[in-house]
Amino acid sequence: MTQLETYITENEGRFLEDLKSWLRIPSISTLPEHAVDIRRAAVYAVDQLKHIGFERAELIQTAGHPLVYGEWLKAPGKPTLLIYGHYDVQPVDPVELWNSPPFEPTVRGDNLYCRGACDDKGQTMLVLKALEALMMVNGTLPVNVKVLIEGEEEAGGESIEHYVNTYPERLQCDAAFICDTGIPAKDIPALIYGLRGIIYTEVEVRGAKRDLHSGEYGGVAPNPLHSLAIIIAGLKDAEGHIHVPGLYDKVRKPTAEELKFWHEDPLHINESLLEEMGVSQFTGESEYPPMERMWARPTLEVHGIIGGFVGEGAKTVIPAVGRAKISLRLPPDVKSEEAFTLFERRVKELAPAGVEVIVHKVHGGEGVMVLPDSPPIQAAAAALKETFGKEPIYIREGGSIPIAALFYEVLKAPVVLMGFGLPDDNLHSPNEKYSLTQFYKGIRTVASFLQKLA
Amino acid sequence: MTQLETYITENEGRFLEDLKSWLRIPSISTLPEHAVDIRRAAVYAVDQLKHIGFERAELIQTAGHPLVYGEWLKAPGKPTLLIYGHYDVQPVDPVELWNSPPFEPTVRGDNLYCRGACDDKGQTMLVLKALEALMMVNGTLPVNVKVLIEGEEEAGGESIEHYVNTYPERLQCDAAFICDTGIPAKDIPALIYGLRGIIYTEVEVRGAKRDLHSGEYGGVAPNPLHSLAIIIAGLKDAEGHIHVPGLYDKVRKPTAEELKFWHEDPLHINESLLEEMGVSQFTGESEYPPMERMWARPTLEVHGIIGGFVGEGAKTVIPAVGRAKISLRLPPDVKSEEAFTLFERRVKELAPAGVEVIVHKVHGGEGVMVLPDSPPIQAAAAALKETFGKEPIYIREGGSIPIAALFYEVLKAPVVLMGFGLPDDNLHSPNEKYSLTQFYKGIRTVASFLQKLA
Repeated sequence: MTQLETYITENEGRFLEDLKSWLRIPSISTLPEHAVDIRRAAVYAVDQLKHIGFERAELIQTAGHPLVYGEWLKAPGKPTLLIYGHYDVQPVDPVELWNSPPFEPTVRGDNLYCRGACDDKGQTMLVLKALEALMMVNGTLPVNVKVLIEGEEEAGGESIEHYVNTYPERLQCDAAFICDTGIPAKDIPALIYGLRGIIYTEVEVRGAKRDLHSGEYGGVAPNPLHSLAIIIAGLKDAEGHIHVPGLYDKVRKPTAEELKFWHEDPLHINESLLEEMGVSQFTGESEYPPMERMWARPTLEVHGIIGGFVGEGAKTVIPAVGRAKISLRLPPDVKSEEAFTLFERRVKELAPAGVEVIVHKVHGGEGVMVLPDSPPIQAAAAALKETFGKEPIYIREGGSIPIAALFYEVLKAPVVLMGFGLPDDNLHSPNEKYSLTQFYKGIRTVASFLQKLA
Repeated sequence: MTQLETYITENEGRFLEDLKSWLRIPSISTLPEHAVDIRRAAVYAVDQLKHIGFERAELIQTAGHPLVYGEWLKAPGKPTLLIYGHYDVQPVDPVELWNSPPFEPTVRGDNLYCRGACDDKGQTMLVLKALEALMMVNGTLPVNVKVLIEGEEEAGGESIEHYVNTYPERLQCDAAFICDTGIPAKDIPALIYGLRGIIYTEVEVRGAKRDLHSGEYGGVAPNPLHSLAIIIAGLKDAEGHIHVPGLYDKVRKPTAEELKFWHEDPLHINESLLEEMGVSQFTGESEYPPMERMWARPTLEVHGIIGGFVGEGAKTVIPAVGRAKISLRLPPDVKSEEAFTLFERRVKELAPAGVEVIVHKVHGGEGVMVLPDSPPIQAAAAALKETFGKEPIYIREGGSIPIAALFYEVLKAPVVLMGFGLPDDNLHSPNEKYSLTQFYKGIRTVASFLQKLA
């Protein structure tokens, strides 16, 4: 057993405790009442960096939530790796569906249940623990390291975007590493080479100046909820086709290799997806294989809708206002600003007469495609092969990590998207969890990755 | 000045105070936490009846909220009038839009603001005060009177329906009088000869077994909110046409006289409607005049909708469930049970693949048309002419008072629908109010009506 392996094995229990302490801080970035928790979670990350022995470890104030920055540059001649993570988490509602309190880390079987257990405190912590192990065993790191951990990933990420655009020279690096993705199954190591962008909006529809009685005004009054339904149904049909003119124009054609993989599904990804969702069939564009729909096609989803009387029983009101949260996922080359313009135009075009429609942009970010044959990605592949015992596959992911596109475009650095989440980790849902096996294997893989990168 | 007029004039202040005390009891029938208030409001009505000098004045227990029953039958040879009212009120949300607390009666100008100020405590109280005035001045009433006040009008009215169907002999009468309607303007007295029925439903759509991350599953996951939008948009188009096959089959053709009135709108009702709503145009079936749409056409309205993430900011969730409250208003001859069957069938037919749809029936009731030339209605018309100084018009109303149909069908009694509400009374909305002028004029009109009926 190597010294490194011994150190990791002996410290697994403490690594887990350190993660649990971080998880107990409810750092929900979208809810203003958690501002103090956000700060506590950021300070906790700084303390971790100091403990590892980083030369610099500090908070960077922003217009929003602080960034955590760490720097260790004592490996002259070696490449510099920029490591990214985020310490903020999603809200927890509906809280009644959690089997244990959402901010009380609870181990059941091989899983640690807690909001953030995977996304992204669990995955960020495993990287920090890989750094710790390397430093403690060797007194040094194999490469130069810059760490940037943000607190707004679930809230649009404006502050980090501003920072990267303003100070690209401070973040100069030979490669960026983002540990915020998953793999298809425990025994299928994977590297992500494509991510979708996103535009998140709120559509607000206003009718009469006040709520009306449907007995008095039903038949002649504008109904914002009915209008909202007409707009949403007009944006996407029951077969999953999005009716936003121009949206599909720039979608990049997949390669023959991609198409083969998606059509043949050699790893039986489709099966586990159906099981995860608890449904018997996929919805959406049936002319495309499910993986293409999830990873490479634009999607339009309604995340929330509210208006009128939603209590128990009956109230015969025609409400004055209705609201829906709607996002578009955008494959690389479909720019978010452009998509928002097309979307807004279409929503207004679909609005029935008699209502006023406002489209708010909540946040947006770009998709990205990286080249699998760059040295940093090959180093990650070799590390995965070492810990998982087999070659990783190269897949896309349907989610959005706008920072990946930003690193790629502004810092001109190859981006390694290597994470250890599993499809049933319940990200953004009740009972989010992280596999302890994946957590510990992740630490070993990242340590190996850094060594190979050197 | 007659003795009656003197009594009413001298007691106006106390009449208002008695109404205010009743209004302060938040008797919301659809919210279980107000069960005690419901009972207090019922007891208050019993006390009013006792104060007038009714022989019987009592609560009738039901499976739901109690009925208030009063009886005074000491006018042999005179007709018996069954008087109906309701002591329950609508919920008050959105409470932040009220200019004064919803259960603190507040006079501003000629108006009394409070939930229930008009619907129906205000209108029920004016009838009780007419009875009181007649009794105090004459020591007797001009006709035999049965009073039945329910506590579930805003909650489906099942208990009174059961009671009327079970004990029709107890309620035997020569005419029924319902004071729960309005008039088009302060100077336009009116009698209602038609009401719509109603079916109130909740449509529940279920997709995956849990909330999903739209980045992971967007494109292949069922989205209940999108499905709900498709269903709602399929039920009624942007031009107000309801696409529920069979629904329009039995709609009764209006008379030539009705059509003339609706098309010509000699009283400029349309103008005040637009002003009330604060909009510049009517929506709905443009091939029918607005009054026909409101009073004589079936309507389908969404009253509330909820699902997914509706907090501040963004959450990229594909929710597992979405719900909408939808009602249909039904002109006479379109039976509610039949309409529900057609509606449920259509909703299920519209449901996209991959979601489960459940249609709950919340409550329902029938519409009614009465003949304007019966003696009780002519007595009401004469009373209105006396107090308003002009002949009343005969109009329909778009709302639903299922008890009117029930009295008409089960008790075989002509039903007088005479109320004093105004179009801007904000029924079921924030800042519900009642005009004090209407309240006092209502007392005089009802007293006159009873005398003429004798």
